[in-house]
Amino acid sequence: MLDYKLLAALAAVVEQAGFERAAQVLGLSQSAVSQRIKLLEARVGQPVLVRAVPPAPTEIGRRLLNHVQQVRLLERDIQAQVPGLDEGGLPERLRIALNADSLATWWAGAVGAFCTEQRLLLDLVVEDQEVGLKRMRAGDVAACVCASERPVAGARAVLLGAMRYRAMASPGFIARNFPTGVTAQALAHAPAIVFGPDDLLQHRYLSGLGVEGGFAHHLCPSSEGFIRLAQAGFGWGLIPELQVQGEIARGELVELISDRPIDVPLYWHHWRNGGELLNQLTHHLTQAAGHSLVDLRK
Amino acid sequence: MLDYKLLAALAAVVEQAGFERAAQVLGLSQSAVSQRIKLLEARVGQPVLVRAVPPAPTEIGRRLLNHVQQVRLLERDIQAQVPGLDEGGLPERLRIALNADSLATWWAGAVGAFCTEQRLLLDLVVEDQEVGLKRMRAGDVAACVCASERPVAGARAVLLGAMRYRAMASPGFIARNFPTGVTAQALAHAPAIVFGPDDLLQHRYLSGLGVEGGFAHHLCPSSEGFIRLAQAGFGWGLIPELQVQGEIARGELVELISDRPIDVPLYWHHWRNGGELLNQLTHHLTQAAGHSLVDLRK
Repeated sequence: MLDYKLLAALAAVVEQAGFERAAQVLGLSQSAVSQRIKLLEARVGQPVLVRAVPPAPTEIGRRLLNHVQQVRLLERDIQAQVPGLDEGGLPERLRIALNADSLATWWAGAVGAFCTEQRLLLDLVVEDQEVGLKRMRAGDVAACVCASERPVAGARAVLLGAMRYRAMASPGFIARNFPTGVTAQALAHAPAIVFGPDDLLQHRYLSGLGVEGGFAHHLCPSSEGFIRLAQAGFGWGLIPELQVQGEIARGELVELISDRPIDVPLYWHHWRNGGELLNQLTHHLTQAAGHSLVDLRK
Repeated sequence: MLDYKLLAALAAVVEQAGFERAAQVLGLSQSAVSQRIKLLEARVGQPVLVRAVPPAPTEIGRRLLNHVQQVRLLERDIQAQVPGLDEGGLPERLRIALNADSLATWWAGAVGAFCTEQRLLLDLVVEDQEVGLKRMRAGDVAACVCASERPVAGARAVLLGAMRYRAMASPGFIARNFPTGVTAQALAHAPAIVFGPDDLLQHRYLSGLGVEGGFAHHLCPSSEGFIRLAQAGFGWGLIPELQVQGEIARGELVELISDRPIDVPLYWHHWRNGGELLNQLTHHLTQAAGHSLVDLRK
């Protein structure tokens, strides 16, 4: 077994944002906390903390933290069965990777009540659709929302529904770039907006119109910024319908070619043995996400 | 001098999202483009491209790319004076780091018309306030918007104005956590939302109320997601007033303690010899940002 005294010290320093407060929470002296961290680093063979204000975990530190969080979730179950075991009462933390567009739209509404009720704190990590799974495989997160169906070993994947994207731009942009209507060729020469290197939605849209290869584009790795750029006439891009209902209604964003959406399925990946709380969250999420996402089975 | 044939090949492969299309644009065979990249890698002593679909620059590749972009900006000036020099007509690219909250609010409106007019494509990099400068120092971006006043060597910093943040939460969260009013002590025990390890606004707010040390918090590195979490009652946090005027008007978000804002100054850092286009952008930006940001000199 690992030495959880050391791991708990690491978790406390990060969660309490400092050695002093970590020592208070753990009921130890500050130098005892320091020593535990140093001992942990000696065992691991590398630093687990960047000594900044507040202290931040190194990559290996983050993996250890996630492990502690998962162990705590499991402990929660056994504590519910054997209540005398309970020592603490600090809220649980769960580290979850999800795509920026989910975080900008349906995520908070779907899990807010659950997290509040269960006193669950979230460490959210934003990753483009396909990257979250790599984080799971690396043991860096307990669960992730991503577009890929295939679970990593030891995990399960559940279909939540799909995000519906539409290729949109401002009316000014459309008038300027497509005076005679939106054709595939004109679109290939108008600037696009791309979220980042993993965002191939614009490529897919063009490819569906028979246009292959590169195209001029702005890079904007922010969900909200992407919409602001589109609104300000920088370019066209695929935007979650959910996120711009107001802009569509007010005519600030217009679909380029009528009713030509791309549906991106979203799966909830979670560890099989992640404990009862993760199972409950999964159960809750599969119900709640359905209210916002498109049902692909229809 | 560097061999710009090799650097142009790198830029073309990244900007055109593939070797085939880069070859078309450069008027070369695909194998000639490949050879140029390999030669560049041999000189640099490490890979400049990750061979994925689309190809992505490595860290060193990104620095080289930014250098090419800056050289192109300078070329633009000399071409304007000596028009016969012009070879191409591809739009210019400029790599700029800015904080997520600026990108989610005033940035697009302030520079949209300028970029469209100048056919300028932006590679935006999202960094929390204090980190953008590190990118400048590393030569990774041509300009950045950040909270720090002091320019790096060779650069200038101009005050654009300030983002006004207010500590806000949903009415439900306030009723649940502060039934008898918002006191410093109650606030220290209610869950907060923090953008990331560099976001110390919540710490500053608590510190201003005499509360020091750590506190329970969700981590949410997304500007829009942060607001969605606050709206859904996950926690309280400092939110740009600009971004939630609708939510405030509709009573979906409420300031915790009346009229207790934190103003974060924003500076535009740009290379002194970044060329005429960067100077024009700077001139334009210092005017346009003032419409959205708070004037600190008043």
